[in-house]
Amino acid sequence: MKIVDYNEDKAEAVDFEDVKNDKVRGLISDKDKAPNFAMRLYEVGTVGDSLLQPPNWEHEVFILEGEGVTYDGEKETKLKSGTVVYVAPNEKHQFKNTGNDTLKFLCLIPIKK
Amino acid sequence: MKIVDYNEDKAEAVDFEDVKNDKVRGLISDKDKAPNFAMRLYEVGTVGDSLLQPPNWEHEVFILEGEGVTYDGEKETKLKSGTVVYVAPNEKHQFKNTGNDTLKFLCLIPIKK
Repeated sequence: MKIVDYNEDKAEAVDFEDVKNDKVRGLISDKDKAPNFAMRLYEVGTVGDSLLQPPNWEHEVFILEGEGVTYDGEKETKLKSGTVVYVAPNEKHQFKNTGNDTLKFLCLIPIKK
Repeated sequence: MKIVDYNEDKAEAVDFEDVKNDKVRGLISDKDKAPNFAMRLYEVGTVGDSLLQPPNWEHEVFILEGEGVTYDGEKETKLKSGTVVYVAPNEKHQFKNTGNDTLKFLCLIPIKK
């Protein structure tokens, strides 16, 4: 069993050209021999956003802290602590921080894509 | 895309003989056509616990609120908001509430076991 506080796991900058002020912690991954899916924690700073992407795998998201919106390329929907988002494979999506604090959310994806 | 507050999802009692004061919300599942893994939110009431089990699939857990311990059959390890627990397949584990409020945690498991 692996038991850690998420703050102990290093936050790395998300390195895409169009992404602003976004870090990720790889909490559970294939490095832990997790066979099926990975847990990551994103921290989007103020006036920041995640990648606008339509990958061909699903995302399971839980908003932990902050305020934001998810954008599907056409409309925005509000997010707050406790919001659950299921993004199906090939659905375009982006998470934007619209609040005054960091927007933190868990995002789980399959390991074998 | 499915976007809901977790409180909108019905909490159902966890119905095992040895489990005390434990409810679960099935936030994302095969009902949403999630192909690989399911997100559930457990709410363990005071003096409650989850099933002591060694299933042959992994659990990826994130503690949201409350205080508790995880018990592996031999020793207990403290849990609080922000603790990440990876339980590998066949590892015995149980979550117990040791605080004065509800212990809430996300627990993700594979859909195909």
